[in-house]
Parts: sequence; C-alpha cells; structure tokens
Amino acid sequence: MEQTCIFCEILAGKAPASFVYRDERVAAFMDIRPVNAGHVLVIPLRHAAFLSELEAEAGAQMFRTGQRVAAALRKSGVKCEGVNFFLADGRAAGQEVWHVHLHVFPRYAGDNHHLRFSPDYFKPVSREEIETTAEKIRLVFKP
Amino acid sequence: MEQTCIFCEILAGKAPASFVYRDERVAAFMDIRPVNAGHVLVIPLRHAAFLSELEAEAGAQMFRTGQRVAAALRKSGVKCEGVNFFLADGRAAGQEVWHVHLHVFPRYAGDNHHLRFSPDYFKPVSREEIETTAEKIRLVFKP
Repeated sequence: MEQTCIFCEILAGKAPASFVYRDERVAAFMDIRPVNAGHVLVIPLRHAAFLSELEAEAGAQMFRTGQRVAAALRKSGVKCEGVNFFLADGRAAGQEVWHVHLHVFPRYAGDNHHLRFSPDYFKPVSREEIETTAEKIRLVFKP
Repeated sequence: MEQTCIFCEILAGKAPASFVYRDERVAAFMDIRPVNAGHVLVIPLRHAAFLSELEAEAGAQMFRTGQRVAAALRKSGVKCEGVNFFLADGRAAGQEVWHVHLHVFPRYAGDNHHLRFSPDYFKPVSREEIETTAEKIRLVFKP
C-alpha cells in the first residue's frame, strides 16, 4: 500500500467507497464524480501508478471485470443504452489519481458527453504516413 | 467472418491495414483516422459486435495487448507523453464499427483532445445516491 494513495486507502478500508466487486486481483467501486449514474472504477489491488507498472494478469482481470460491470449496468435499471471504457495513463492523458483505474460508465442518447477532438482530427492521413508510424511501433513492440 | 464487417475484412486480408501485432486471439493495427499519430485499434479475431458477445479471454488479451501497445508507443519516437484507452459499446456510447475495438492512442500536452462532459458532470452526488446505484449493480453483477 502507498500511504498517500486514495485508492489504496479505499482498498484498506480507511476511506469510504461503494464496492461492486472484489477478488484477489482487482476491485470495482463507484466513482464519486460520476459522468452518468452508474459510473464504476475498476482497479488493481496491488498499487501501480501507471500501465508500465501494472502486472499483465491484473490488467487482464480489469478488462474481464469491466465487461461484467458493463453487463450488470445494462441489467441494473440504471439508465444505460451504451457503455464506455476509458483509461488515462499519464498526466497528458488526463490521469489525476496515480493508481491505474479503468472507468466503466453508462451512456444514453442525449447525455451530451463525448470526446472533443482537435480540429486536426479529420485531417486526412495517407497510408504511407500510417505505415511509417506502424513500423516505428512494430520495431519496439514486445509481445 | 461477417461479410459486411470491415474489421473482419481486414483480418481476412481483403481490406488494407497496417498491423502492429497479431496472435491467435487478437490483432492490433493502425486507425486510419488517428486522434494523434500512433492511434492503434486492438480487436478480437472472432467477430463480436458488442461486449456482450465477446469471449472473456479475448477481452483479457485485448487489454494485455493494449498495455504492450502503450509501452511500445512510449518507446517508438511517436509523440507520446501519455496514453488513453477508449472503448465504445453501443451507438449511445459512440460505437461506429460493429466489431468490438479498443482504441489505444498517444496523448501529449496541448493536443487539445479531451472528454467533454455535460454541465451536470460536477453536480454533487450524495453517498446515499451512490450507494443506491451500487446496490442496483451488485444485485445483477455476475462474477
């Protein structure tokens, strides 16, 4: 446990949370600033600030749990016509709590939430540019 | 393979794509409308339109692969100070291709991308309201 981590404090029972699920690798509890009602966070039990520190099997279980949360949201009676998963790794990606967390939240038509992309978003990119970028990634990808 | 699914066509080699990785469960290739250069999609090989149709082990491998893509992005030389994972399940969540896909894309300060939340986003929610919602989800959650 990291002394200064609010999610570790929640896991240790030292801070309040409304849990949905917990097993030997991960826990799921309600976000207290929900995007929509039913917003759940899925986190690893073992502290990892970034994806680079997260054990692969904890990550795998985070996704499995997110999938189960999504199924539950759709059956729960909470307003839910769709579900988003969102994860921010690093400050530039919007991360604000330094313990890896997968957001799982319900969506419905007219909720007015969406990603805002910069004006460059729809700038056409050539296959050649894309292939050049792919090659950079392939060169360092570790399977 | 679904005849009308562009991602199944890509997997079958009938449509072009710049692949980063492929194994027996998942594949990763470049998004042709990148949010930022280096935008990768991770998909299951077996067609699943929605999370509800996705095999748990394919989902787990999607996350593992996303984590490896994130690590590769940070080493690749592509501009990358952070990484987002994003998945849309259902039209109301922003899904546009009916084959499950996890977006993995690099972020950097000043790229001007962010989630836009409705004005209700910061409306305080009481612990009691949150706990009521948690109970609805717990009642139907299948571990």
